[in-house]
Amino acid sequence: MFENLVENIQGYKKPLAFGIARVDFGQVNRDKVLQATYPIINWNENFGSAAVFIRSLFENDIEVDFNSSEFVADVTKEFVETALDLFGKDLVEEAEGDKHKNIQVLKILKEIFDDEVMDNYRICFLFEDEAPQSVEAVYLKLYALSQRKVPLRSLNLNGAFGILTNCAWVGNVPIELDYLRENEIELKLKDAYPEVEYVDKFPRFLSHVIPDDNTRILDTAKVRMGAQLAAGTTVMPGASYINFNAGTEGPVMVEGRISSSAVVKEGADVGGGASILGVLSGTNGNPITIGRNTLLGANSVTGIPLGDGCIVDAGIAVLEGTKIWISEDEFNKIKEVNPEWSAEYKEYFKGLELAGLNGVHYRFDTTKGKMVAFRSRREVKLNEELH
Amino acid sequence: MFENLVENIQGYKKPLAFGIARVDFGQVNRDKVLQATYPIINWNENFGSAAVFIRSLFENDIEVDFNSSEFVADVTKEFVETALDLFGKDLVEEAEGDKHKNIQVLKILKEIFDDEVMDNYRICFLFEDEAPQSVEAVYLKLYALSQRKVPLRSLNLNGAFGILTNCAWVGNVPIELDYLRENEIELKLKDAYPEVEYVDKFPRFLSHVIPDDNTRILDTAKVRMGAQLAAGTTVMPGASYINFNAGTEGPVMVEGRISSSAVVKEGADVGGGASILGVLSGTNGNPITIGRNTLLGANSVTGIPLGDGCIVDAGIAVLEGTKIWISEDEFNKIKEVNPEWSAEYKEYFKGLELAGLNGVHYRFDTTKGKMVAFRSRREVKLNEELH
Amino acid sequence: MFENLVENIQGYKKPLAFGIARVDFGQVNRDKVLQATYPIINWNENFGSAAVFIRSLFENDIEVDFNSSEFVADVTKEFVETALDLFGKDLVEEAEGDKHKNIQVLKILKEIFDDEVMDNYRICFLFEDEAPQSVEAVYLKLYALSQRKVPLRSLNLNGAFGILTNCAWVGNVPIELDYLRENEIELKLKDAYPEVEYVDKFPRFLSHVIPDDNTRILDTAKVRMGAQLAAGTTVMPGASYINFNAGTEGPVMVEGRISSSAVVKEGADVGGGASILGVLSGTNGNPITIGRNTLLGANSVTGIPLGDGCIVDAGIAVLEGTKIWISEDEFNKIKEVNPEWSAEYKEYFKGLELAGLNGVHYRFDTTKGKMVAFRSRREVKLNEELH
Repeated sequence: MFENLVENIQGYKKPLAFGIARVDFGQVNRDKVLQATYPIINWNENFGSAAVFIRSLFENDIEVDFNSSEFVADVTKEFVETALDLFGKDLVEEAEGDKHKNIQVLKILKEIFDDEVMDNYRICFLFEDEAPQSVEAVYLKLYALSQRKVPLRSLNLNGAFGILTNCAWVGNVPIELDYLRENEIELKLKDAYPEVEYVDKFPRFLSHVIPDDNTRILDTAKVRMGAQLAAGTTVMPGASYINFNAGTEGPVMVEGRISSSAVVKEGADVGGGASILGVLSGTNGNPITIGRNTLLGANSVTGIPLGDGCIVDAGIAVLEGTKIWISEDEFNKIKEVNPEWSAEYKEYFKGLELAGLNGVHYRFDTTKGKMVAFRSRREVKLNEELH
Repeated sequence: MFENLVENIQGYKKPLAFGIARVDFGQVNRDKVLQATYPIINWNENFGSAAVFIRSLFENDIEVDFNSSEFVADVTKEFVETALDLFGKDLVEEAEGDKHKNIQVLKILKEIFDDEVMDNYRICFLFEDEAPQSVEAVYLKLYALSQRKVPLRSLNLNGAFGILTNCAWVGNVPIELDYLRENEIELKLKDAYPEVEYVDKFPRFLSHVIPDDNTRILDTAKVRMGAQLAAGTTVMPGASYINFNAGTEGPVMVEGRISSSAVVKEGADVGGGASILGVLSGTNGNPITIGRNTLLGANSVTGIPLGDGCIVDAGIAVLEGTKIWISEDEFNKIKEVNPEWSAEYKEYFKGLELAGLNGVHYRFDTTKGKMVAFRSRREVKLNEELH
Repeated sequence: MFENLVENIQGYKKPLAFGIARVDFGQVNRDKVLQATYPIINWNENFGSAAVFIRSLFENDIEVDFNSSEFVADVTKEFVETALDLFGKDLVEEAEGDKHKNIQVLKILKEIFDDEVMDNYRICFLFEDEAPQSVEAVYLKLYALSQRKVPLRSLNLNGAFGILTNCAWVGNVPIELDYLRENEIELKLKDAYPEVEYVDKFPRFLSHVIPDDNTRILDTAKVRMGAQLAAGTTVMPGASYINFNAGTEGPVMVEGRISSSAVVKEGADVGGGASILGVLSGTNGNPITIGRNTLLGANSVTGIPLGDGCIVDAGIAVLEGTKIWISEDEFNKIKEVNPEWSAEYKEYFKGLELAGLNGVHYRFDTTKGKMVAFRSRREVKLNEELH
């Protein structure tokens, strides 16, 4: 239906992703974008809406560069009106509830612009998943991860840290540190110094994403924007933390740390204070996946990927170089549940040699002073009631 | 004095507990109660006030069901006026400061209702401590725990998780996730998206409870409503956490996790990152008590109950199945401070066999590779000054 | 230029430190100072401004006691006007941006006082670094630490805990617990109960201090006022915490706990959940310094000072009494990078005997059940990109 819209637009191609965002500008650098808030993002979908948006830009003399990996333009009142016209009265009327969310965005913008013309709305297209060039593109990718439009570790976020500005965050609002510096005396004396809740380049997950009904995050500080939480995940407020580009793929109890690049699967339990190392903090660049129904005991440290049904006992560290003793009998049992594992038996294995195996119980034998591994006897079940 | 009030009320019995609460309703489901805030609760006390309240309901044609374990009714303007009349002018005048707090509640309600008739006040009675059936009853029990009206682990909270709604909390206000979903586009575009501080079924302790003067909670996220903190307890903001139905019975320094059902006694010290396991996370259903002046070292894990004057060294895990070596000499010394302990000597004990013993020091011997236990030489003293 | 101002002021001496603060009073005890907010502090500097301020007090009949270690006076409209006159029109005009910040303070105060006379501004002088006697003096010292005017551990803070009031903090505002108690019924029923974010004697670092552009604090609860963070420090939101009089002297990744009195040097990495013990929590009063480029692994515990380029493996505890095996070969290698270390070789060393050594790698040998130390092979580098 929308294809004729783009027939005469040179070089047109379907975007990988797009969305309209409200942006926050700097208080000192008033044209610097500090944050982009997307009411809805489109990822490999809704190409008709994309065509309308691109046509509307075209009709308002904005030329989209389809050869670059991303494109950002201001959203003007004219753009909004053109786009609403192109969608047509019927669709615009239907756009409510779960229907036609991109049109709903336009309707609200029309309402806003009818009241006052604003310059803090942007439309962003990604044509390729290359290193992001703009704040809008970084946020579009963080949304894609956090709204589970794409798998963890699947996007190119190279250089994102260089694009984002380190800000003082007051509620959902980023404030430039220079603004605080320049106004410190007045703000403090007049009792108007803001309550700074954190200082970071990234916002928090809960400032942008609505979790599922059965997902709990007991402290907003614990989950960075760009993290991904499957439905049924609970993040407790003790020592836990989920970094961007890390998270869960099923219901998981999280009381420990899921470092950037780490992924935890359905039914696993990250015990209180447990640490899953990230690619640049001890794993030599190997991202860690924790398998289904695997239990990481309280204050354990895991530096290798683990398969399904594993147990790491409380308080122990299983790292790439950790030497682990296995009896021949248990070695054979472990092989049974890991048919593709081709290792020959030996007494001691390094952690890295056991990477990804299913059904292994890691324990420190407090009588012999040895780290040992054996076939885990039980599937670990997550208890819903207690937490 | 109040007994004649209830003479002709059929089946009258004294409630176990009661209180008047302000409730928060859902934004989408406008008759769903999300939270109940009690200015004061009565637990096995103030039966005269209970009689007045029940009489006032009776006179306003509300029949209390004394056979059910709990009863909840709306607080109306008429109810408030009847109750104030029944208390009488003298008591009402006296009701100030620490006197007659239930009457103070009525006086404020009268003031509110004179201004505007509201439907968000409820009175809740518990007649038996059975599984709660309403949000109001769950909160009444959480208040009883957190205001130290009852001991930890003494109340029936079965099914509480099913009764409470998982909400986004903005300050002290619960917001339905569906409300955010339905209004996401408008809220985000109009820069009105709320600052969600956490998503949980339970609120935070500090939203409902005023701690003692010498109690410190350095981060509200660290203590869930339903936790109990004795005067003099300090909760630091690192890895600490106190769940509902868990807490302290005396001044305790808390820098670690006190899981649901765990209780820590006077003068104990829960070191930085120390974990006390809960009933469904490693203790096979045995709730853990930590005795007086016992020290849990930094990053230790404790999966058994401990008596008084114990030490668990930093970084070690003492679980039910942990094998622990004890010399015969130290075994005898431990017996001296545990006269009721009937064990026979053997070299290795499992953690569970040492459960609840006083004066035991748990250490990992880094020369022999053994977990060992011996009589602890010192009483652990909590230092007030440093924290 | 300002010296003649003080010629006839008896006993005049240059203050060690001074500043003008806005103070918060109690809600119940209305003359009790709960907090002092300094727009700027002066530490061993700006003696001309000090002379003007003292002269202005003198001309307004306030006698400064130069023999006491500190002095606090109200800032009145007259004081402000006298001080502005003494500075003179030229300086006052110049006072903008980075210039003459003390005069900027006066200009804003004049603006405030022209609008309304206020009694909540104070000037505080320290003449000696003795135990502080006032809330204003405690805060002046906390500012000096947090704004890096003085080294960590260099100030006398004895008795500070006794001077500060334990408050409920709502944003940057301290509220007396008694105020909440006295108004609980009304506040709760009228839906005006404040959102208490923490209860403590100390405020948070970010309520008073603006970090450097490349410094990140992902959760304000994690850093107490009086902590010191060098530029480039990152504090993650998992299990981390930096207490007052503790912190970093260079860019450091902080994912663990830096207890009061602990100092971490440039390029070090405090891994997730790592604990550095404080003077009264396991170190027998020896404050701990962690050297340059030293790595504390996830969930490790360090109870001794460490030199540069050390590694403490994840999950282990190196305490004063920990027995650590060293081979003769590695002993000699460690001596090479610690030329001043005069120890003789023996198989086992206690942790305390290795205090402060450079280039030591601490590991638990999971095949022999021994804690071992050897020459660390690599310098630890902090990765900027990942976090």
